[in-house]
Amino acid sequence: MIRIAVLGCGRIGAMHAANIAAHPSARLAAVQDINGAAAEAVAASTGARVMNSAAEVFSSSDVDAVLIATATDTHADLLEQAVAAGKPVLCEKPIDLSLARVNRCAAIIRGVKTPIQLGFVRRFDPGHKAVHDAVRAGDIGVLHQVVITSRDPGLAPEAYLRVSGGILRDMTIHDFDMARFILGEEPEIVMATASRLVAPALMEKLGDFDTVTVVMTTVSGKQAIITNSREALYGYDQRVEAFGSKGMALSENRRPNQTLLFGKGFSNHAAPLLHFFIERYREAFDAEIGAFVKAVETHQPPVVGFDDGRRALVLAEAALKSIAEGRAVTVSEVE
Amino acid sequence: MIRIAVLGCGRIGAMHAANIAAHPSARLAAVQDINGAAAEAVAASTGARVMNSAAEVFSSSDVDAVLIATATDTHADLLEQAVAAGKPVLCEKPIDLSLARVNRCAAIIRGVKTPIQLGFVRRFDPGHKAVHDAVRAGDIGVLHQVVITSRDPGLAPEAYLRVSGGILRDMTIHDFDMARFILGEEPEIVMATASRLVAPALMEKLGDFDTVTVVMTTVSGKQAIITNSREALYGYDQRVEAFGSKGMALSENRRPNQTLLFGKGFSNHAAPLLHFFIERYREAFDAEIGAFVKAVETHQPPVVGFDDGRRALVLAEAALKSIAEGRAVTVSEVE
Amino acid sequence: MIRIAVLGCGRIGAMHAANIAAHPSARLAAVQDINGAAAEAVAASTGARVMNSAAEVFSSSDVDAVLIATATDTHADLLEQAVAAGKPVLCEKPIDLSLARVNRCAAIIRGVKTPIQLGFVRRFDPGHKAVHDAVRAGDIGVLHQVVITSRDPGLAPEAYLRVSGGILRDMTIHDFDMARFILGEEPEIVMATASRLVAPALMEKLGDFDTVTVVMTTVSGKQAIITNSREALYGYDQRVEAFGSKGMALSENRRPNQTLLFGKGFSNHAAPLLHFFIERYREAFDAEIGAFVKAVETHQPPVVGFDDGRRALVLAEAALKSIAEGRAVTVSEVE
Amino acid sequence: MIRIAVLGCGRIGAMHAANIAAHPSARLAAVQDINGAAAEAVAASTGARVMNSAAEVFSSSDVDAVLIATATDTHADLLEQAVAAGKPVLCEKPIDLSLARVNRCAAIIRGVKTPIQLGFVRRFDPGHKAVHDAVRAGDIGVLHQVVITSRDPGLAPEAYLRVSGGILRDMTIHDFDMARFILGEEPEIVMATASRLVAPALMEKLGDFDTVTVVMTTVSGKQAIITNSREALYGYDQRVEAFGSKGMALSENRRPNQTLLFGKGFSNHAAPLLHFFIERYREAFDAEIGAFVKAVETHQPPVVGFDDGRRALVLAEAALKSIAEGRAVTVSEVE
Repeated sequence: MIRIAVLGCGRIGAMHAANIAAHPSARLAAVQDINGAAAEAVAASTGARVMNSAAEVFSSSDVDAVLIATATDTHADLLEQAVAAGKPVLCEKPIDLSLARVNRCAAIIRGVKTPIQLGFVRRFDPGHKAVHDAVRAGDIGVLHQVVITSRDPGLAPEAYLRVSGGILRDMTIHDFDMARFILGEEPEIVMATASRLVAPALMEKLGDFDTVTVVMTTVSGKQAIITNSREALYGYDQRVEAFGSKGMALSENRRPNQTLLFGKGFSNHAAPLLHFFIERYREAFDAEIGAFVKAVETHQPPVVGFDDGRRALVLAEAALKSIAEGRAVTVSEVE
Repeated sequence: MIRIAVLGCGRIGAMHAANIAAHPSARLAAVQDINGAAAEAVAASTGARVMNSAAEVFSSSDVDAVLIATATDTHADLLEQAVAAGKPVLCEKPIDLSLARVNRCAAIIRGVKTPIQLGFVRRFDPGHKAVHDAVRAGDIGVLHQVVITSRDPGLAPEAYLRVSGGILRDMTIHDFDMARFILGEEPEIVMATASRLVAPALMEKLGDFDTVTVVMTTVSGKQAIITNSREALYGYDQRVEAFGSKGMALSENRRPNQTLLFGKGFSNHAAPLLHFFIERYREAFDAEIGAFVKAVETHQPPVVGFDDGRRALVLAEAALKSIAEGRAVTVSEVE
Repeated sequence: MIRIAVLGCGRIGAMHAANIAAHPSARLAAVQDINGAAAEAVAASTGARVMNSAAEVFSSSDVDAVLIATATDTHADLLEQAVAAGKPVLCEKPIDLSLARVNRCAAIIRGVKTPIQLGFVRRFDPGHKAVHDAVRAGDIGVLHQVVITSRDPGLAPEAYLRVSGGILRDMTIHDFDMARFILGEEPEIVMATASRLVAPALMEKLGDFDTVTVVMTTVSGKQAIITNSREALYGYDQRVEAFGSKGMALSENRRPNQTLLFGKGFSNHAAPLLHFFIERYREAFDAEIGAFVKAVETHQPPVVGFDDGRRALVLAEAALKSIAEGRAVTVSEVE
Repeated sequence: MIRIAVLGCGRIGAMHAANIAAHPSARLAAVQDINGAAAEAVAASTGARVMNSAAEVFSSSDVDAVLIATATDTHADLLEQAVAAGKPVLCEKPIDLSLARVNRCAAIIRGVKTPIQLGFVRRFDPGHKAVHDAVRAGDIGVLHQVVITSRDPGLAPEAYLRVSGGILRDMTIHDFDMARFILGEEPEIVMATASRLVAPALMEKLGDFDTVTVVMTTVSGKQAIITNSREALYGYDQRVEAFGSKGMALSENRRPNQTLLFGKGFSNHAAPLLHFFIERYREAFDAEIGAFVKAVETHQPPVVGFDDGRRALVLAEAALKSIAEGRAVTVSEVE
């Protein structure tokens, strides 16, 4: 039984806390939040103990591991503290919005054996993972193209967007990781284009974009295409396609039920897609906790680690540079 | 080049005439209809010659074969005349509404080598045929159940229904043939239930039904289930399912395009099903002509023949008896 | 927080116990099994207390409600005892294999206000429920036909089949309930046919069947068709179709992921269907517990109650009589 | 009855000839090919007259219009001659591989009223057209992204590839036109990447590519993404997706039948996609002829004209420049 403490009791922290509480091999040892009431609420529904500070968590002998779900700008600090305390970490993405900060963190934790897992939850989705596994098993031959469609169901509040680091570091970052996960090799060149179509005035104000396409190529010529939008009215559009010399594997969208309606003038009318990440990646969040528990139990490196977090951020930087300069950017330019 | 004459230039005759005219190995030699204007219209669009009577057709040395698409009550007479004239026949279903008449016809044509093909066009549908072929190839192991869904897009006019012979002899007859086609053995016992739900008053007046379910079992215990309705507002619902010891084959519905619409509150919204038999079984009508041409060219028995027409009618009789008497009817009771 | 005790810690009892333990408004108060080790195992993984007898459960003031998941032949006795003790009950189906016993039980509990919920879990399936809701909302107009496909992934062990009461009381019983759930009115006439195709020798020995089709009609002429098989090699085939004057609603099968594979000679190759009821009806089992908790909290009659259990068994009896006598059986004949 | 002559009796010319012969409002007046035997073969199967030269066709008073399906390097010359002769033209794409030659042709035909239709057949596909129509009808709100997947079933012979002008002018050209058709506005900026993955040695030799991704943006920020491959082993992969502020429209792939196979370990196994353009765009080729006939009859400009052919080639040039220079290319740079 691995005893895990959750730092940060916002929406995603609360969800992780519930998942840990329900996990057969894990126990929710403690919860903590700078907003004490948020921690109390999660404690009340899970029976977990509230701790008053991250320091208390890191020094507690009742805590075997920590999950960091705090504000992004605290991730790197907490991660370093956790590692210093010898506590395995599952850290929500991104590590930090600044690549420089991530690189400093990387230097600090270099050589450390403590398991550090990054919260790229989509790697644990049964559908996307089935695509990955089909590629690795050679079911589609040699991989040629990866096509990732990733559209949020609706624009996040301005307050969130303001601190998000922008669509590429906040949203596309998941797709950069998915591309790397499926490709099995590193993108070398990045081209991107970005538009303001969903909320032009707001995006202008924030210096951000809401509609993005990124194309990446590897040294061997494999291509990865990502299309993003901040608002898909039909639900959370999450598709992964791998095309290769012998075929194709597609992870299609999911709906809350498989019910189809037929009537005058139409057929196959279905429910909208599952609303957002909590619904869409429910099994994946469970499996993510399971993988972390296993990594802690076995002291093995997690399947998705610190460097995966760093590399996804590097690709975001390259894409931003490509948008700014209107040219293909070699990844090494931004590392 | 097989020279074919079409007797009967109503909707289905006109369609057959156009298909024959367009077929690479057939020529539309002549058309005939008791309504001369109907024949003239078809002749005008196809370039075919008009003949004034069936007798003229049967005696013409320019006609190699005939297609009978006249009113049902003339089918048996014309079929006998065609055979007497040594002309291969493609006869629309049903042979006749009276099993006694069909049996007399059977006696008359017994032993004749002239190819006689029955118009059970659905056997030529690429999808249904793929189910048949999968069953014969053993892809689903030993067949256990056949489930046929067959619903018309809308009620035919009263004038048509009045002379149709009733839903079982007019509409279900195609499904009886499909069941036999997939089963590969003869149904022995028939149970049926029939309701008046689409147009209760009209059906009451006609002594007919609009909603029917038939269950048949073979000696080996295979089951065939047919569900019919005279009115499906979403289009022509035509599905065939074969279930067996090793799997299942499904021939699903078809739509005019594969376009899906997604919007607020829904996904996968598609066009209605193809409207009716002319649209749904277009390829099948083509293939039916092709099979007839081949049978004529090679003097081989057609893949669907007179006895298939008779057996489907026997099953309709058994189903009617089951409905009337509220019991399972053995097919031998009505033969 | 409703404190629920689980009687019977076999496969389904253990699953219910885990679901109760994870439910936010319920607590797993106790578990009990005549095989103490089974109870201990469930207790170990859930933290629940083991009680040594049903009597102890019924007399405990720490137990607000009970879930009966014991052997079928104890259901009616335990249900009566629970009601006598004033404990709300969620009872697994069937109430008993004997309609006479069920009727005695009905007489005993008549007028009792204690919530009694029957374990017809499929009513809580998001897909089937969406069909039900579409029908009730008038989305398909007036209902004409209900078509239920229900095939187990594989034959149960002989030991289970021997005490199952036969396919109609054990397996079809769920479909009888689903038919009533969708129909919204009572079947009046039942016709059925049954075959031995999956395991002929075993079925002969047991006097049972493995392949069944049932057709039921209501007074208003609505038709319900059920097709069953004990073995579908591609997974647990669970479909519900409602057809009406304005359209159709289909609850389609579910798979563990939405991944499709394309390769030389094929497209859209997907994973097999979800294996069996534990996987297929996972959300439904959760929702079933939720509905029970709510019924207990509010002292309202559960959405599926004792009489639903009795009526499903009556339909099974009518179907058995129809199979034996080869005729349409009126439900009143067997009540 | 429009009398059409077909110039060029290769695979695509022969297909067009047959379609014209079968069209109710058109007549195949003549066929011509520099290889007389090819013309004779088409004449034999269609009954058309053979003409010995393009000049004979253009001067014949029995020819109302011409279809140019000759080798690409003759298109522009023949088109100019047809226009000079006052014969409406349906010209296969591309007009020419050289933009300079196309521009000269444009200058020559400027102001001419003779209907000139370009062979961008995909605009007539029922599925792609339904996407276009949904976009124009506002069904998906304001368009944001167009995603076109276009993969050939297999590599063409080296002899064909050598004269094809390269993948962008030969294959992607259809997708450039489709993007413009759906976008409803002109791409302004083009970014592309190209790889040699299907047949690296051959592509190297030819200076060509087999795997291409193109991203285009319009002035308003709309994005169009094209992914191409010369070899998809599962068939001709042809999908068009339009995403907008209110939803999405998808034109999905097509298969020869709707039959699905289920077995141990899999479900929904379907036939491969329709093989190639002749099968996939059969209805579209018919509709293309129909649109041309209508344009000739009504003397209206065709729905897809000369300038559409020119603009698609301009986009190909821009994409080639982007690949060569590794940067976003503004379309005006290459015009």
